[in-house]
Amino acid sequence: MSKLYVIGIGPGGQEFMTLQAMQALKESDVIIGYPVYTDLVKPIFPDKEYLSTPMKQEVERCRMAVEAACAGKTVAMISSGDAGVYGMAGPVLEEAEGKDVEVEVVAGVTAALSGGAVLGAPLTHDFAVISLSDLLTPWEKIEKRLDAAAAADFCIALYNPSSHKRADYLQKASDIMLRYKDPETICGTVRNIGREGQSCEIMTLQELRDTKVDMFTTVFIGNSQTKKLDGRMVTPRGYKHE
Amino acid sequence: MSKLYVIGIGPGGQEFMTLQAMQALKESDVIIGYPVYTDLVKPIFPDKEYLSTPMKQEVERCRMAVEAACAGKTVAMISSGDAGVYGMAGPVLEEAEGKDVEVEVVAGVTAALSGGAVLGAPLTHDFAVISLSDLLTPWEKIEKRLDAAAAADFCIALYNPSSHKRADYLQKASDIMLRYKDPETICGTVRNIGREGQSCEIMTLQELRDTKVDMFTTVFIGNSQTKKLDGRMVTPRGYKHE
Repeated sequence: MSKLYVIGIGPGGQEFMTLQAMQALKESDVIIGYPVYTDLVKPIFPDKEYLSTPMKQEVERCRMAVEAACAGKTVAMISSGDAGVYGMAGPVLEEAEGKDVEVEVVAGVTAALSGGAVLGAPLTHDFAVISLSDLLTPWEKIEKRLDAAAAADFCIALYNPSSHKRADYLQKASDIMLRYKDPETICGTVRNIGREGQSCEIMTLQELRDTKVDMFTTVFIGNSQTKKLDGRMVTPRGYKHE
Repeated sequence: MSKLYVIGIGPGGQEFMTLQAMQALKESDVIIGYPVYTDLVKPIFPDKEYLSTPMKQEVERCRMAVEAACAGKTVAMISSGDAGVYGMAGPVLEEAEGKDVEVEVVAGVTAALSGGAVLGAPLTHDFAVISLSDLLTPWEKIEKRLDAAAAADFCIALYNPSSHKRADYLQKASDIMLRYKDPETICGTVRNIGREGQSCEIMTLQELRDTKVDMFTTVFIGNSQTKKLDGRMVTPRGYKHE
């Protein structure tokens, strides 16, 4: 049976890949992904066959991957971050259903973790990961999740916090947070995680509300215990005194 | 200024470490961690100085790490999974506050991702990570988070789902889930992720309620869209039809 790897390559640079991801890429004949991600891998494995489709054609990309595997090739479908979290593992498994292809998912470091490391330790306690993209999810559902996560004092990582069409979504999300969370709650943003031009900022929730971010930014919102220590965002491990 | 790395080494085997984690370990003079984790690293880097404290003495372990760094050594504090998620990055940054030590956090693959890859793609959409350990968190707070995450249809990963003292906590958590989630909701468990004897199981929420798990298990609860496909747990990328 042919093998189809779905690989999370982490935030960008090769150093964030796992050894397992490197090995799976090495074993593959064909590497498929969004051009930005295949361009990251090409210099490491120049002799592979590369396939790609433009953004938003993920289903077509999965079809290509399953087809190449059915033709007997070992295939790697790559996602940035983790393979599962808003990644390609889901759609690939749906596309491969019932076909003669063995799908192996190779986990990677998602932006909540890689961005968290840049800021310090924002997610040391229970946390929620929420995408603000309403492309495939009704906005009402996203609002409900923001409300629930804020009310229960989760630390929160926001993915896709903005785009041209959704310039005010982070402000909307912050206003929902402010129903329950103190305006002084420690928050952070990380842009271009693990890539050239990486930058981060720590601020209050009130300041986050009026901050402009772009689609290359991941946003972190602390819980009631999160603090700023020596310029890092740190959530303690618990509520009781150790 | 001395360097203190806090490194997430992933679920177990060396293949789940990032190249960055390997490099940071290589640069370190001293490696500190819970014995189970230092034992995983020793065969790869046999010539380092190893320090360790028993379980539950995390604060003492952080003190040792900061002390060694202040003495001029390059130090690596290792956590399983990610360095941040219920890991040592938080307490190390607290301990290092105001001291002449540069703390660098090296992210790793946490059990939600590594266990998710074993099951398929359970966390392709918004998700919450909740620990059922009430050692440092009041149980009422944990219940509130379980309730909020279930009500808002999050996918959920449960860490520390059981221990000798908390044998019925997964049942309690499942009962809270059942207030909102269908008893047929697809769930999964993964035991000994990335280690010898790894095993996984897919079941319904009703079945999960009556399943016994141990502290080496991570539990996954799907959202309303999660399905079982060819024996894998798969959450689709969205709610609208693509």
